[in-house]
Amino acid sequence: MGSGFGRLFRVTTFGESHGGGLGAVIEGCPPGILLDMGAIQAQLDRRRPGQSALVSARKEPDQLEVLSGVFEGRTLGSAIGLLVRNKDADPSAYAPFKDKYRPSHADYSTEAKYGLRNWAGGGRASARETVARVAAGAIAAQVLKVQFGIEILAWVRSVGDIVAEVDPLKVTLEGVDASPMRCPLAEKAAEMEACVRGVRKQGDTIGGVIEAVAIGVPTGLGDPVFDKLEADLAKAMMSLPAAKGFEIGSGFEGTTMKGSAHNDVFLPGDSPGEVITATNHSGGIQGGISNGMPITLKVAFKPVATIFIEQPTVDCSGKATTIKPRGRHDPCVVPRAVPIVEAMMALVILDHALRQRGQCGQR
Amino acid sequence: MGSGFGRLFRVTTFGESHGGGLGAVIEGCPPGILLDMGAIQAQLDRRRPGQSALVSARKEPDQLEVLSGVFEGRTLGSAIGLLVRNKDADPSAYAPFKDKYRPSHADYSTEAKYGLRNWAGGGRASARETVARVAAGAIAAQVLKVQFGIEILAWVRSVGDIVAEVDPLKVTLEGVDASPMRCPLAEKAAEMEACVRGVRKQGDTIGGVIEAVAIGVPTGLGDPVFDKLEADLAKAMMSLPAAKGFEIGSGFEGTTMKGSAHNDVFLPGDSPGEVITATNHSGGIQGGISNGMPITLKVAFKPVATIFIEQPTVDCSGKATTIKPRGRHDPCVVPRAVPIVEAMMALVILDHALRQRGQCGQR
Amino acid sequence: MGSGFGRLFRVTTFGESHGGGLGAVIEGCPPGILLDMGAIQAQLDRRRPGQSALVSARKEPDQLEVLSGVFEGRTLGSAIGLLVRNKDADPSAYAPFKDKYRPSHADYSTEAKYGLRNWAGGGRASARETVARVAAGAIAAQVLKVQFGIEILAWVRSVGDIVAEVDPLKVTLEGVDASPMRCPLAEKAAEMEACVRGVRKQGDTIGGVIEAVAIGVPTGLGDPVFDKLEADLAKAMMSLPAAKGFEIGSGFEGTTMKGSAHNDVFLPGDSPGEVITATNHSGGIQGGISNGMPITLKVAFKPVATIFIEQPTVDCSGKATTIKPRGRHDPCVVPRAVPIVEAMMALVILDHALRQRGQCGQR
Amino acid sequence: MGSGFGRLFRVTTFGESHGGGLGAVIEGCPPGILLDMGAIQAQLDRRRPGQSALVSARKEPDQLEVLSGVFEGRTLGSAIGLLVRNKDADPSAYAPFKDKYRPSHADYSTEAKYGLRNWAGGGRASARETVARVAAGAIAAQVLKVQFGIEILAWVRSVGDIVAEVDPLKVTLEGVDASPMRCPLAEKAAEMEACVRGVRKQGDTIGGVIEAVAIGVPTGLGDPVFDKLEADLAKAMMSLPAAKGFEIGSGFEGTTMKGSAHNDVFLPGDSPGEVITATNHSGGIQGGISNGMPITLKVAFKPVATIFIEQPTVDCSGKATTIKPRGRHDPCVVPRAVPIVEAMMALVILDHALRQRGQCGQR
Repeated sequence: MGSGFGRLFRVTTFGESHGGGLGAVIEGCPPGILLDMGAIQAQLDRRRPGQSALVSARKEPDQLEVLSGVFEGRTLGSAIGLLVRNKDADPSAYAPFKDKYRPSHADYSTEAKYGLRNWAGGGRASARETVARVAAGAIAAQVLKVQFGIEILAWVRSVGDIVAEVDPLKVTLEGVDASPMRCPLAEKAAEMEACVRGVRKQGDTIGGVIEAVAIGVPTGLGDPVFDKLEADLAKAMMSLPAAKGFEIGSGFEGTTMKGSAHNDVFLPGDSPGEVITATNHSGGIQGGISNGMPITLKVAFKPVATIFIEQPTVDCSGKATTIKPRGRHDPCVVPRAVPIVEAMMALVILDHALRQRGQCGQR
Repeated sequence: MGSGFGRLFRVTTFGESHGGGLGAVIEGCPPGILLDMGAIQAQLDRRRPGQSALVSARKEPDQLEVLSGVFEGRTLGSAIGLLVRNKDADPSAYAPFKDKYRPSHADYSTEAKYGLRNWAGGGRASARETVARVAAGAIAAQVLKVQFGIEILAWVRSVGDIVAEVDPLKVTLEGVDASPMRCPLAEKAAEMEACVRGVRKQGDTIGGVIEAVAIGVPTGLGDPVFDKLEADLAKAMMSLPAAKGFEIGSGFEGTTMKGSAHNDVFLPGDSPGEVITATNHSGGIQGGISNGMPITLKVAFKPVATIFIEQPTVDCSGKATTIKPRGRHDPCVVPRAVPIVEAMMALVILDHALRQRGQCGQR
Repeated sequence: MGSGFGRLFRVTTFGESHGGGLGAVIEGCPPGILLDMGAIQAQLDRRRPGQSALVSARKEPDQLEVLSGVFEGRTLGSAIGLLVRNKDADPSAYAPFKDKYRPSHADYSTEAKYGLRNWAGGGRASARETVARVAAGAIAAQVLKVQFGIEILAWVRSVGDIVAEVDPLKVTLEGVDASPMRCPLAEKAAEMEACVRGVRKQGDTIGGVIEAVAIGVPTGLGDPVFDKLEADLAKAMMSLPAAKGFEIGSGFEGTTMKGSAHNDVFLPGDSPGEVITATNHSGGIQGGISNGMPITLKVAFKPVATIFIEQPTVDCSGKATTIKPRGRHDPCVVPRAVPIVEAMMALVILDHALRQRGQCGQR
Repeated sequence: MGSGFGRLFRVTTFGESHGGGLGAVIEGCPPGILLDMGAIQAQLDRRRPGQSALVSARKEPDQLEVLSGVFEGRTLGSAIGLLVRNKDADPSAYAPFKDKYRPSHADYSTEAKYGLRNWAGGGRASARETVARVAAGAIAAQVLKVQFGIEILAWVRSVGDIVAEVDPLKVTLEGVDASPMRCPLAEKAAEMEACVRGVRKQGDTIGGVIEAVAIGVPTGLGDPVFDKLEADLAKAMMSLPAAKGFEIGSGFEGTTMKGSAHNDVFLPGDSPGEVITATNHSGGIQGGISNGMPITLKVAFKPVATIFIEQPTVDCSGKATTIKPRGRHDPCVVPRAVPIVEAMMALVILDHALRQRGQCGQR
């Protein structure tokens, strides 16, 4: 289970890093949307390995094939089948370790769960799985833009201790993509890049934080109890490989504030009947439901587990041994995780937009 | 939608802070479990308002009635119906504000979503909704203990800037409940208590962090993609009223570490075939699947939105006004949130334990 | 599991024939609907035992309590909690048989599944469970009428060999309720009534068929593959106690026809752009999606299993014995099943109406 | 929505009759099952067009590609991706009718739902969609056999008025496949074949009924309320293209019986503790839960809508016109529907077997 996500706009994915390919089925897509296939491919290219010196050298074109659900360029409303073939799989890099568990990878827990695993690559636990998410999310993003006027953008907030504090409302796609780090502050981007190059040289890796914003979100998306909008966003983000933390609005910092400072007081907006808040510690969501302000969130990514340094571990018979992995891996996931975070955010918000339209009609 | 949670062990709740009462339907509970009703009521009592000077003065006995699904003390396997009546609702406290939106409450977003709201109390957005979660979670906790040997414990880690660093493996229920703050470090508990009393005196509120651990979790719970165990835990926790952040294992701090420091190397355990990790930055979950180590998480709670200080806001016609709420509220949610976090953790882990047993059989 | 039904408009029920009562949680109800509580109670009264000499003598007022989700008479959009207390439970009638399995009841299969059962009454398998369905369905019916202009009506088509062929478009509620049999053809109703009185006198029971129609269903409800509208209707109806068969449109009789006779040719309708079909063998659904014609279906109900005639059976140790049940039971379920079939039809159609509005917007 | 089916063993399909191909994602498959790929392909071959003179002449090899989820021949437990390419699509046959609605096809209702449709072939409503079901069902059937000892078999019971009454316990796969009609009574098969050839010669079509049995089903599968085993079977079968009716056990005929004749009295079985029933009007399910007897069901299929006879219809502007379709179609669906019914039955029963193992453990 667990390869499906969403209630009305639902994505079900399949595929392993080494095998026939990766794909997804999208159910519930609104019909009649003229898809910009170039924009979808562009998001896949932003996620692709081999795109810069900062990321994995694996060479994957990640060319998307749409198998069904689109006719004469438009969504049909019925199931969309998506497929991306693996082109540069290299199981030989993994063969030496097939009987050892790589530390902080999913090798051990997967084998403990299922009794076997696809040891040629990371299998289903490989971050390559996110290809399917990005393809589906890019379609969701187009529906959000066309039918709801919502735009989503993510960027690198930190790498290690290097933090870029930016105003979420001033970030642009061009600004984010100006550097291969995908941090919109040029100076910080350069620092981060130097850091990543440094840890790579040591055969080591480093973590980081992604920040994201959704603008133009109407009021009323989300549900009051278990399916709070922030809860579904949290699940979406924490389902990403290497994610260790999630914050909406003020996050953990908000816990140190008093209510009198944290409360977002309401003000009349510019247009008649519009209501805004003076601050946005709520991150655009109150009581699980969007309040019309920008939705802001952060996701923490741990350092990549594959390091080219010898480490203790055990083998599949439980005996102590050591391991020094090979293979093509990223020294830091955050530059490539930017379009992935955008994809997950689009999936959650579109699902709730359709749910709201279903339950409450078009307001 | 959104009042249901879980796939195999599923809880669906109802109820508002002011109205006929709160309740839940539990589907999928393993049959034949002899329920300790006292232990369930004890968790409700830990959540109850009026239990100490640190929390809301509302007087609710929160007496649980089991309407179905239990026969001669044992779970039948079929739907369990639970009901707790509201006894001390006081809508009069809310009447003066029925046309004004309380800042950082769900009043505005709820009305924007549905076009109307139950203004007598917080309605479905009231933290009183969590009564139903605690009752259901307490049942889940008993199943976890009896059938899987799993135990869950939560405590207050911080209030404002006061942080209690404790070893999750050394915390006991007695230690937690030794103070009304539910912080197991007596000295820190006293500091926190003083802090809470202080903000209450100012009519203000303060945030805090809860930490929780699950011990005895077998390997193999969780799924590799969207339903990663940490993803479902994140959704569970971020669906709690006032939750703003979630961390599994190393969380945001882990983003500043290098892979060589963050990786949890595997070691042979004490019993034959057992595998453990030297550190537990993973928080007991790798690739979405439990690895047999303790599951550790943290949840950030913002300061309560109801403060007894005048604040700007707008009324339902969109005009600027001010508001100074009355009513009975907590100056800090964390002491009462401890059993709620435990409940949500139990719901997630039991659901995954049953899913694992269903898919992979009893290993 | 399995006490929940529906994706956007979702009902989760609980309760046993003997116990604290029966109830339901409704999620996803459109907000702002002014509920006619009298009409809801009227449907419960049509289902109630003790309403005529043709049905069980158990005395249950089946008074509905709305615990949440309705405020000042209107639906809030959030979870609606419903409760009906059991008032006339009589476990003593069941005590003598607690160790024997009643033939064609669920005693044996329930105990085989769960290892235990609530032997005081039929437990969760009792038809009394349908109280919750009728309450929820009556709310759904009101939403369908107000927001979509859809009306649903069911009636008794046959009892044993006595069949009443009626034009679904000419049936009225008054016609149906003119006799306690709920067959709109007076002459056939009288025959059926005589038949039911006859079998009751023998301590025996008899089966029958219910027919139902939904009028005013817009085009476009339903989905092309697994969630075809007729598939969800089939599940809904076959989930009713004692249901053994389901037909949409031409049903089994349609299998004997040639395509040239069975095809429903399209014709221009009276209003501009309207399309109708000359015949309606499709029963208003083509390819799983409503085509705007009336939806017509039939449900087969077996004879009630409780007969007051001695029968062979086994006891819980597996030994052969005999049983002659007591208790208050219906000689024929169909008169009381009429509002239950209406309820299930309303639940399915409303769920799909909301799904369609969500995915495709308001057309 | 609606391309997914099942709760624990879940299949999500995609694909249109004319387009890139058809496929499925299977979630929740038990791990470690050594798949017999030949047996899976064999079921696809039984469903394939062009297999005999009785069915559509479309030439599709329907060669299955497994994209993920299987490693060294064994199921991994993670998502299985399946793909079958379309090889002999011929949109030109459909181009002349792209603005006309074929009677009793889904053209009109699909366009009314989505505002557009893939007019090249039947799109998502084509029976070609069932390729994906058969592939997934064949995998489910292998799991059922290996882990639960359950076997499923279907056959043609009737074509038009020609009915073959057979003892479900005496049917064999060889018997079914002895004739291209897939009716195990040779004489009746010959009659049916003559009938089908006759209607084909007239450019017409004819309906029929499929009967199916599951043997070796343990007690305890199914749920007491909405997810009764027969309810899920009904949904599964009524989701098949052209299905108009469903019966479990005694079906509609059971409605004419008295309880004293219909009741399945319990008897001690041959092995110690075993309980059987003297008759099986219940069709192996009581109160929604399997009782250990064979599960027997019937599905009614209407005559295929595509006839090569001119018929009235309307065009997409709503004007009256006529249509005389071309294309390659079956004169009667039932021979090819046999493996499809088997597939759906396997999907339902396996899902419930895993649910039961999850909730109640291995009994």
